[in-house]
Amino acid sequence: MSSGTPSDEDKLIARYFGAMATDAGALGLSDDAAFLKPPPGCDLVLTTDAIVGGVHFFNDDPAEAIARKSLRVNLSDLAAKGARPLGFLLTLALPKETGDDWLTGFAKGLRDDAAHYRCALFGGDTVRTPGPLMVSVTMLGAVPEGRMVKRAGAQAGDTVFVTGTVGDAALGLALRNGADWPLADAQRDHLLSRYLLPQPRNALAETILHEASAAMDVSDGLAGDLAKLCRVSGVAATIDAARVPLSDAAQAVIAADPAALETALTGGDDYEILCTVPPARVDRFRVAAMAAKVAVTPIGTIEEGEGARFRDAKGRELAFRRAAFSHF
Amino acid sequence: MSSGTPSDEDKLIARYFGAMATDAGALGLSDDAAFLKPPPGCDLVLTTDAIVGGVHFFNDDPAEAIARKSLRVNLSDLAAKGARPLGFLLTLALPKETGDDWLTGFAKGLRDDAAHYRCALFGGDTVRTPGPLMVSVTMLGAVPEGRMVKRAGAQAGDTVFVTGTVGDAALGLALRNGADWPLADAQRDHLLSRYLLPQPRNALAETILHEASAAMDVSDGLAGDLAKLCRVSGVAATIDAARVPLSDAAQAVIAADPAALETALTGGDDYEILCTVPPARVDRFRVAAMAAKVAVTPIGTIEEGEGARFRDAKGRELAFRRAAFSHF
Repeated sequence: MSSGTPSDEDKLIARYFGAMATDAGALGLSDDAAFLKPPPGCDLVLTTDAIVGGVHFFNDDPAEAIARKSLRVNLSDLAAKGARPLGFLLTLALPKETGDDWLTGFAKGLRDDAAHYRCALFGGDTVRTPGPLMVSVTMLGAVPEGRMVKRAGAQAGDTVFVTGTVGDAALGLALRNGADWPLADAQRDHLLSRYLLPQPRNALAETILHEASAAMDVSDGLAGDLAKLCRVSGVAATIDAARVPLSDAAQAVIAADPAALETALTGGDDYEILCTVPPARVDRFRVAAMAAKVAVTPIGTIEEGEGARFRDAKGRELAFRRAAFSHF
Repeated sequence: MSSGTPSDEDKLIARYFGAMATDAGALGLSDDAAFLKPPPGCDLVLTTDAIVGGVHFFNDDPAEAIARKSLRVNLSDLAAKGARPLGFLLTLALPKETGDDWLTGFAKGLRDDAAHYRCALFGGDTVRTPGPLMVSVTMLGAVPEGRMVKRAGAQAGDTVFVTGTVGDAALGLALRNGADWPLADAQRDHLLSRYLLPQPRNALAETILHEASAAMDVSDGLAGDLAKLCRVSGVAATIDAARVPLSDAAQAVIAADPAALETALTGGDDYEILCTVPPARVDRFRVAAMAAKVAVTPIGTIEEGEGARFRDAKGRELAFRRAAFSHF
């Protein structure tokens, strides 16, 4: 044998992803591993989330959107921990029929979001699968030493905040699955796009780092995720359901179909940030969020005890049929 | 809704993997992310490799072996970079029919190897898939700052070394697929076990770090992987095929079926280390490898030029039908 021919996998990686591996430590994706010089005075924050065709996205979603979603569900975790993104490793399991067009679109979505959120491709693995397409991303971020914002940390007296609007993605998914609500086209498009493409709140990461006592990203539904935060913090929460921020489109759905309120409060895929802020920092938090151009809404209060309760305008506790959304 | 019920996924993670998340930064797997305080004076080494049922392992392989293989293919990358393992993130895509017995076995294999190779579980994601079972691992290691051993770095005059024996796993896979060679039971078992369970050479990592000019792990076949190392190093290599270390079992196969030599030299899944050592360090390298109890064999020489050539005992160049093994 004479000079080595790159394998099909090496060629695919070089062709579609080589240009994205801008970090020196990525070695142009031509080594067994990448190296990373950790930022001085920082801890690394590590998270991994995978999305599977037919489970977390529709197989006919645009390849660009699938790429972006795979990054954004991880970016959202970093944002909630107060971390700034450094880079990511990508595992791509491809069915045989995946063609050039799909890979071109996927690489474009990945490249655009990697540039926008300033996270470099460090490395990855591309494998064939007889099953559905799957994208698994491991993302690394940085926070000042010892400062990662945890789920545990909420204290009685803290205010519970949530970013953006809640429930849009779950209602968008219901629309994809055939729900028929009387909506204007723009409302329908809003809900569908919120399911297709999360909007992670990385612009708020630094504010979370400085002002929040606890935080997490809302991926399995506001109600269930708040319950998790309360459990690991050893506290209770009471939420004023009427204050939970809903988009115009979500309000239109709930006006037509009041049962959809539960879908909004317990459905998954919001990728908003849920956080708790001590009384002395609430004003600073709101000012900083405004400067970061991320909408934040106070929705309730942390108390002694356990469990997360949602109350309606008359103070009656809402009962949900299921605690949390799970793809599992 | 009152106190939160953990989702099925949370319960599964706590039950099977909680005990393994011994690192403080893993937060008992109960947060969105883990944090890692980087070892002082070190660069991090990052690698990710996935294995898919029906592609990289047989679906009826023991769950324990699948878990170990998923770690070991990544540990092998770290060993070849001269890095010591720190920990890993695990993405597990599970078909619906995966039961408790399988998960118990998988968790045991993972736990045993994580303890043996001293790498902690930092975090992970568990998802359902309508496809085959897939395990994706991202592993982090550490090397002294600026010292990761790269594939690029081989120089004319360096000796090419390989650890262990070459080709056993490829021949073991051929046996699994029905190849019928006249072998003693122990020989057959040896080849099958080498496919089922890689033996990564992490015991040699420190020696690689100090003595090798370039290194990689052999996962896609000795011939193809050496060609890659030569390409990124900008050098050529001539290998004396008769010196390539073969196990008794592999020798028995080749004696009965000379064409199997090509399978041994180009087949995948060896997970041995291929490295180049400058003349002044060859003796130290051999002594250190002996102290580390890892067999190393000099198989050829790096030269000016390009391409990797294998010569037989009479100096004739071997021609292979395919350059490198690829699951892809």
